[in-house]
Amino acid sequence: MSNPLSQSPQGHTPDHTVDVKLTPRGYQIDIGRGLLAHCATLASQRANLRRVILITDANVAGLHGDRVAESLRSGGSSVELVVVPAGEASKSTQEVDRLWQAMLAAGADRKTTVVALGGGVVGDLAGFAAASFARGIPFVQIPTTLLAQVDSSVGGKVGINLPGAKNMVGAFWQPHYVLIDIDVLQTLPDRDYRCGLAEVVKYGVILDADFFAFLEDHIGAINRREPVALGRIIARSCQLKADVVLADERETSGLRAILNYGHTFGHALEAITGYGSWLHGEAIAVGMLCASRLAESLGRVDSDITKRQEKLLKNLGLPTQLPQVDLDAMIQAMQFDKKMDQGNLRFILPDRMGAVSSVGDVPVEHVRAAMVSTSGRSG
Amino acid sequence: MSNPLSQSPQGHTPDHTVDVKLTPRGYQIDIGRGLLAHCATLASQRANLRRVILITDANVAGLHGDRVAESLRSGGSSVELVVVPAGEASKSTQEVDRLWQAMLAAGADRKTTVVALGGGVVGDLAGFAAASFARGIPFVQIPTTLLAQVDSSVGGKVGINLPGAKNMVGAFWQPHYVLIDIDVLQTLPDRDYRCGLAEVVKYGVILDADFFAFLEDHIGAINRREPVALGRIIARSCQLKADVVLADERETSGLRAILNYGHTFGHALEAITGYGSWLHGEAIAVGMLCASRLAESLGRVDSDITKRQEKLLKNLGLPTQLPQVDLDAMIQAMQFDKKMDQGNLRFILPDRMGAVSSVGDVPVEHVRAAMVSTSGRSG
Repeated sequence: MSNPLSQSPQGHTPDHTVDVKLTPRGYQIDIGRGLLAHCATLASQRANLRRVILITDANVAGLHGDRVAESLRSGGSSVELVVVPAGEASKSTQEVDRLWQAMLAAGADRKTTVVALGGGVVGDLAGFAAASFARGIPFVQIPTTLLAQVDSSVGGKVGINLPGAKNMVGAFWQPHYVLIDIDVLQTLPDRDYRCGLAEVVKYGVILDADFFAFLEDHIGAINRREPVALGRIIARSCQLKADVVLADERETSGLRAILNYGHTFGHALEAITGYGSWLHGEAIAVGMLCASRLAESLGRVDSDITKRQEKLLKNLGLPTQLPQVDLDAMIQAMQFDKKMDQGNLRFILPDRMGAVSSVGDVPVEHVRAAMVSTSGRSG
Repeated sequence: MSNPLSQSPQGHTPDHTVDVKLTPRGYQIDIGRGLLAHCATLASQRANLRRVILITDANVAGLHGDRVAESLRSGGSSVELVVVPAGEASKSTQEVDRLWQAMLAAGADRKTTVVALGGGVVGDLAGFAAASFARGIPFVQIPTTLLAQVDSSVGGKVGINLPGAKNMVGAFWQPHYVLIDIDVLQTLPDRDYRCGLAEVVKYGVILDADFFAFLEDHIGAINRREPVALGRIIARSCQLKADVVLADERETSGLRAILNYGHTFGHALEAITGYGSWLHGEAIAVGMLCASRLAESLGRVDSDITKRQEKLLKNLGLPTQLPQVDLDAMIQAMQFDKKMDQGNLRFILPDRMGAVSSVGDVPVEHVRAAMVSTSGRSG
């Protein structure tokens, strides 16, 4: 309660609202300052909060857990708080089993709402627990990292990892409501903040040239985490992602695949360096540059588009060079990517700023050459 | 291949077909003799069988596993056979985790089809593995018990148990196809066969007076497991269940609850006697009689409707008397049933043969009296 961030002048009126107009049930994303302290009022318009299972991790519990629990309780909710260990390792069968049993012990049923307070790990894990408990109960996302705010909390993908296979088990389970408090980003570690920005840049490249230019024009404000700029980039990112999800909710038409721009190279980099040394957003930043250079090498774009991305990513403090890694291992990891069809190398590649295509049967020499150029090596 | 059951004169033409016309995707249930040996031909019209994860239990593997695997392989499928221990204990987090990992090791993806060959345990477990692996992959049901053929393989409810809570975790995940081979019932143990008949009788009481009369008129043929009678009762049961599922796929309107006729008493009996001593169908048989007498006691029906059920169940070799159990414990178990709302005693009760209603706020004295009459005790 004494946290100055909750004393935002904006009170509990969201600055931006994004409607995700899915059928049979759409939902709303509210974005604004100081919203955490008012989450009960805001969320109660969208979900039944009589009984809440509030799931968070050990880090976020200390920063924001009390404020959210207090808001919910003062709104009349009965709240069961469940804290999971922070970190990717919590996206496991063991941890979701522990959640299911905690929900059972708390008497959860289909009228109970799961509230996920945290980053992508908490959202994915709690979302899968909600999707599968009693064959599916309502779920509210309160993402507290930039990456979760602009990416994982929107679109309904929830799940856990299997040993050696990220997100291998899960569901498409749309939240009833997403509440994004910009102020929580002020306490986010620098590296995590920049990782979120990589996905923001991605939306510009794949879908919105004007948004990309906006980012180029507001580097200072973004790096200073100025709330007005943050509100705009989060709202635009959520809207762009919502548009894609609307067109291909369950990844059946292939359209949703454009969100994987930079991810084939990025996932391979994460995999061969052992998840954790490169954060997801960092790997995606380098992956986008590899993909853009691959498009150049295939004669699809000129080098200007890569240079603009490189400059923007660099100015946002993101890595732009592939480290010294085994390129054969990278290629092998890409061929094993779960989104690859029978080892056929397929990539999302830019056509121009703001537009991409899915390109298959890419010759391996071009893939290698794109990585060589991005690593600064001579080959 | 030398099994005489596969030499059925009907070959691989189904005798009955039920269309489950769900949106966005419906599916077909084929019912006939000797279909197992032709499952590849039949299922390949409904699902991509290039890569199959065939899941069965240790009992069914010996009886039918080879025939199904051989049919699939001769149809060109690459088949990974996964055998789980027989019995309810396999519906666990540990077992579904083992399945997920086996699927991962076999290289399963969204173009892989899970085929569940077995009773309700295998169908529920394999179905949940299919629903959650890669956020959902196609799934074919080949139920081998009467109970699974007329109940659990239709309607898309899949899931596992938590300690002390049956079916607490799962999904609504509709199969792409259901293949019912009547001939497999010839090897089904007597008690399991009769348990399936309890659910068949239930469909008559809740939805179809003519079907109930058909059962009364064909007791001999049913008890002798005559294939023509079996085909008719399975097809009619599947059609009736499909109609209910169509009207309320995700149990949101309350309509699907009519399938729980006899189940509130039955679940309580299973729970307090420790799951296993009373089989599900046996408990449901007695549960239906309790519910019917409760309807009498509330002045909703006269005693004739109970007498007809009692006679039919008895003639089908099912129990009709509640054993000596603690009635307070029964009532407590009913109040804790996950379908009860805040301890309010609610039951599906007959209005007349072929029609039921959901009745709430039932006074506990009437519930007790119905059990006393069904136990043959004086109170």
